[in-house]
Amino acid sequence: MTTEKIDGVSVATQASVYFDGKCISHGITLPDGTRKSVGVILPATLTFQTGAPETMECVAGGCEYKLAGSDTWLRSGPGDTFSIPGNSSFDIRVGEAYHYICHFG
Amino acid sequence: MTTEKIDGVSVATQASVYFDGKCISHGITLPDGTRKSVGVILPATLTFQTGAPETMECVAGGCEYKLAGSDTWLRSGPGDTFSIPGNSSFDIRVGEAYHYICHFG
Repeated sequence: MTTEKIDGVSVATQASVYFDGKCISHGITLPDGTRKSVGVILPATLTFQTGAPETMECVAGGCEYKLAGSDTWLRSGPGDTFSIPGNSSFDIRVGEAYHYICHFG
Repeated sequence: MTTEKIDGVSVATQASVYFDGKCISHGITLPDGTRKSVGVILPATLTFQTGAPETMECVAGGCEYKLAGSDTWLRSGPGDTFSIPGNSSFDIRVGEAYHYICHFG
């Protein structure tokens, strides 16, 4: 079961472009003020830093990820989530495309 | 004056990926059922086909575009719009990034 849409949000029209376009996201704000983003990572192996803790929810495609301090790559596909502590990092490798919702906090 | 956000929309969580990732967009649906998309085009020269007529509104960055049947490249920057007839095409060239809202119909 994947989250195909999110209703009643305010969407930022300007995308955030990371890693030379390998990751593109749009920020959204829910009615209660909660901020999230919807994005896609294209084929690449990347390292992301977190500020706030994040939960990544896969909505289509998939990836493998490895949290800081771990030696294990784990698979995440549609409907799966994984969480990253704040002020940490994770590696992600994507073979086709990884479509996600990023939940903060 | 650019449109920085669009309120009260339903956002599709899966992106549309065109031209090997040179164009990424997310579909949005307004409360009245109107569909638009928010997206970004990365540095490239591309040709897009239209089905329905489209109006492209620049929200950040910029591009040059040339409509089918024209020999003239025109510049479009933040706050500018240009319209493309249905069942037509346009060329677009982007040097940095072109962030847009696509209005249909």
